[in-house]
Amino acid sequence: MTDVSLDKVKEIITQLEANPTDLYNNSFFITWRYPKETVNAVLLVAEALKRLHKAGKSVRVFDTGLGLSIFRDNSTRTRYSFKSACNMLGLGTEELNESTSQIAHGETVRETAAMISFLSEVIGIRDDMFIGEGHRYQKEVSDSIQESFDHGILPQRTSVVNLQCDLDHPTQVLADLSHIINYFGGVENLRGKKVAMTWAYSPSYGKPLSVPQGVIGLMSRFGMDISLAYPEGYDLLDEPVEAAKKFSQETGGSFTLTHSMAEAFKDADVVYPKSWAPFTVMQERTQLLRSGRSAELKALEERALAQNATHKDWECTEEMMKLTRGGKALYCHCLPADISGVSCKEGECAASVFERYRLDTYAEACYKPFVIAAMIILTRFQNPVKTLTQLLERDQPRRTVC
Amino acid sequence: MTDVSLDKVKEIITQLEANPTDLYNNSFFITWRYPKETVNAVLLVAEALKRLHKAGKSVRVFDTGLGLSIFRDNSTRTRYSFKSACNMLGLGTEELNESTSQIAHGETVRETAAMISFLSEVIGIRDDMFIGEGHRYQKEVSDSIQESFDHGILPQRTSVVNLQCDLDHPTQVLADLSHIINYFGGVENLRGKKVAMTWAYSPSYGKPLSVPQGVIGLMSRFGMDISLAYPEGYDLLDEPVEAAKKFSQETGGSFTLTHSMAEAFKDADVVYPKSWAPFTVMQERTQLLRSGRSAELKALEERALAQNATHKDWECTEEMMKLTRGGKALYCHCLPADISGVSCKEGECAASVFERYRLDTYAEACYKPFVIAAMIILTRFQNPVKTLTQLLERDQPRRTVC
Amino acid sequence: MTDVSLDKVKEIITQLEANPTDLYNNSFFITWRYPKETVNAVLLVAEALKRLHKAGKSVRVFDTGLGLSIFRDNSTRTRYSFKSACNMLGLGTEELNESTSQIAHGETVRETAAMISFLSEVIGIRDDMFIGEGHRYQKEVSDSIQESFDHGILPQRTSVVNLQCDLDHPTQVLADLSHIINYFGGVENLRGKKVAMTWAYSPSYGKPLSVPQGVIGLMSRFGMDISLAYPEGYDLLDEPVEAAKKFSQETGGSFTLTHSMAEAFKDADVVYPKSWAPFTVMQERTQLLRSGRSAELKALEERALAQNATHKDWECTEEMMKLTRGGKALYCHCLPADISGVSCKEGECAASVFERYRLDTYAEACYKPFVIAAMIILTRFQNPVKTLTQLLERDQPRRTVC
Repeated sequence: MTDVSLDKVKEIITQLEANPTDLYNNSFFITWRYPKETVNAVLLVAEALKRLHKAGKSVRVFDTGLGLSIFRDNSTRTRYSFKSACNMLGLGTEELNESTSQIAHGETVRETAAMISFLSEVIGIRDDMFIGEGHRYQKEVSDSIQESFDHGILPQRTSVVNLQCDLDHPTQVLADLSHIINYFGGVENLRGKKVAMTWAYSPSYGKPLSVPQGVIGLMSRFGMDISLAYPEGYDLLDEPVEAAKKFSQETGGSFTLTHSMAEAFKDADVVYPKSWAPFTVMQERTQLLRSGRSAELKALEERALAQNATHKDWECTEEMMKLTRGGKALYCHCLPADISGVSCKEGECAASVFERYRLDTYAEACYKPFVIAAMIILTRFQNPVKTLTQLLERDQPRRTVC
Repeated sequence: MTDVSLDKVKEIITQLEANPTDLYNNSFFITWRYPKETVNAVLLVAEALKRLHKAGKSVRVFDTGLGLSIFRDNSTRTRYSFKSACNMLGLGTEELNESTSQIAHGETVRETAAMISFLSEVIGIRDDMFIGEGHRYQKEVSDSIQESFDHGILPQRTSVVNLQCDLDHPTQVLADLSHIINYFGGVENLRGKKVAMTWAYSPSYGKPLSVPQGVIGLMSRFGMDISLAYPEGYDLLDEPVEAAKKFSQETGGSFTLTHSMAEAFKDADVVYPKSWAPFTVMQERTQLLRSGRSAELKALEERALAQNATHKDWECTEEMMKLTRGGKALYCHCLPADISGVSCKEGECAASVFERYRLDTYAEACYKPFVIAAMIILTRFQNPVKTLTQLLERDQPRRTVC
Repeated sequence: MTDVSLDKVKEIITQLEANPTDLYNNSFFITWRYPKETVNAVLLVAEALKRLHKAGKSVRVFDTGLGLSIFRDNSTRTRYSFKSACNMLGLGTEELNESTSQIAHGETVRETAAMISFLSEVIGIRDDMFIGEGHRYQKEVSDSIQESFDHGILPQRTSVVNLQCDLDHPTQVLADLSHIINYFGGVENLRGKKVAMTWAYSPSYGKPLSVPQGVIGLMSRFGMDISLAYPEGYDLLDEPVEAAKKFSQETGGSFTLTHSMAEAFKDADVVYPKSWAPFTVMQERTQLLRSGRSAELKALEERALAQNATHKDWECTEEMMKLTRGGKALYCHCLPADISGVSCKEGECAASVFERYRLDTYAEACYKPFVIAAMIILTRFQNPVKTLTQLLERDQPRRTVC
């Protein structure tokens, strides 16, 4: 095997040995609650799988088995990434449609969890609409699976993978980070780079906080200078902010909070301008939605949109970009972006800026299936070093004929 | 191979030799219309597959092929069980969505049957809403497939598997029975055990009769004492009742009908308290639904709910459970159950009783994917003894790497 | 290998060598825009796959990978055929549901195209509702994939397969043609056969023009006499009509246009009576739908239905059939047909005629999965001769046990 990209896979496997995790027979929830080795392991396995796949090698590890998804909010790329991840590993996929199931019939979460886990290796869940709910639901599913597994009912300990909750969006931000690592030529080059995670104006309302929270809770672990910027009133939850402060200090980076987009963009190496709803709005919305008070909900929406509209200057314009390091910071976005004059009248990003980085954002998104596949391997295989070594050595093409 | 559970598979294969069936290139509809050997064969193949799967062995028998499902009523566990069964055998799955197909466009059942069978090995159908319709529809699909197969149009004789019709719910009750056999340590221990199949109060209306009919039509074949209990007016169809009487007599068991829940529970070894609609209500509902008379339908619903409400004492309480053999009968349910104070105010079962048996009901449900897989193997493979023997001997793990 | 049907596969492979195409790493759009060799290649690969499949051989060429479908209009058989094609080749399938994706959120077509192509080998698209739109959309998706592939973002050049657009319905008409070739015992026997592609009355409105356009644009390439018949005002687009004229001239056949169904049926060897909307109605409908003018849309529908109703005599009756060659022309239809007295009061075809050819139309439809699979192989494999040769030589059964 003389393929350079595959020689690199050998190196990755060596690095993986130094990053053991407790993920086996467990679930993957929130990056900032795991040790750094766990984060490293996901990044390394994802990179190895991406290289094997690009070289035309099969990374199939399952003969049969199912990957199930539950989407409680719309999704294009995460849904498709999850299904791609399952497919590349050899799992069939199903999606639980709560409206045509008997869940409305009075089924409890723990009952459903057992019922859909019989032959499942993994369940991917997006539940990001309500503050205080998404993670709790994912945890309840995971705990119920554990109970059924402990009692010998389930033949395997199906893992839950967080495809976005109210707190974190780990598959997204680990894909973002993989892209940034690749852009700067290695994780060792992140030290001292400045990342601007900034709020940006959007004509829509109620966007989750999980992406900015995930970004600061993850990128702060690599010695980077994190600048979080948003207009007053758009605070994030304390937990990820405190985590980011602590990680920055531990890794020799820094964490600063500002209410000026320009200040965040100043000399930034990476910019991530993205809208989110104020935490208090999300809380109020959760309560109103739950109690079905639609008139008040409408009033809240109008108030929130009006509040957003006072910050239309929070746009990633060419002028803003000129403030970044050499005017050439890497623009990141989880997509879809609100592009001024393209997908909306006024939005998060100027059309010319977005167009210049458009293909970069596609490349960024392309890491997600491999990040998810890495989480599946780490939660389902006891010795991922051995698993990857076998994948490399068996050298099986993705096509069965040429 | 020294795995004890796999030694047991060898025994099962030996027993299977003594239970030949006519299922090859046919469909699976209603248990009580088949010879006892057919029922035995399903139970045996299901048990063998479950053991192989639990031991981490692949039971994949197809390289490619499709399993198609048609759900004309909501479903969580049967839908998922069907897809799990297909997946473990190597089939991809699709679900026919009648609203986005051209069926509304004037397609006939026989046309649709041919169109979705091109590369299908099996079609699973749930059609349980209307008395006199579900089985007829499944039969029409199966006959149409036979016609196309006979004329050389279809390359294989796709089988139809009944995932619940108006008469029977065979995949459910064979899973129930597998669970009971396992609980008592073998089919030979069923003789003389008392099974109480009883109606129970539910605040909902229109629940199918197929589960109680399936239970009495199946469990009566093993020398058990079947006690069927329901309030006056909740009669089942004659055919399964007559079948149960005949089977009980033939196998040295007994069949009794009572209108007292307590009498049924008295000294019972197994209790299956579950709501269903009176047959006459289901008939009237079918006619009203078909003619779109919504006002009369609403009136029927109110009348039926009021009728149910006069029988709230038909609840599986702690007091009722104390009447059973040693107060410790095995509680069975097809799920989801109406649990008093949990999923409804007053329902089929007291919360404390259900909680004590909750994990048992999950274990009960876990047999369903294997029962369905057994039906697929028996309908699609000419010599299932040979098929299972090969699965056992090839000893292939479910994972392609470790 | 002494199987006669497989000896025929060897012959087909030899013929395929004489029909090279430019389809590799490309998409499949509209038959009449491709050289004749391309059309031949699809027919040959489809026939080879069908024979291998019928002989119980696996035609799996992918270890893993996805086939994605986008249906912007209802579908039973094309949807199912696409999924069957993917499955037989080893691809998992997913369907993009635009309503639960983030597309409504402001995603552009080129963004979506990249996002759903990460691990996809093929995307099948039906978009036939609006004149001037379907093909344009398919092309835009294909071009966007090309861009992402050229920039190294996508690891493979996902192909787009036209599952019906506003211009052509290639998978349908190539299946129709395969059936006709088989009926007459070989492509060499088509010369001089008369094909009547005629309009027929339907009580519905707005049926696409793509089938009749596809039929004349394809069947005219084999030396047949094409008779296109429709009432005044039901013109097809110029492009396929001009193509049909040119092809007929080149291949020694003929192309005639008439406004008499009887004239077209006279001595026909094949009849294809099928309703479609006048081109001008489709154009007007497109504009009204886009601008949401529902009152005018309703008026248009009424006007179009009234116009249709003046041509109820355009029905494929027993009397019409008597006009055909020996009264025994082969009746073709893409299904579902509007059958008088069965699926509607008065429609395209008399019930007795349809019933006589019903199983033939099923056989016709059965070619579609193989046509689609052929398009996937030709667009994804550089040397299809080698691919088929390997499939034949490896001689792998579709079942992994017997």
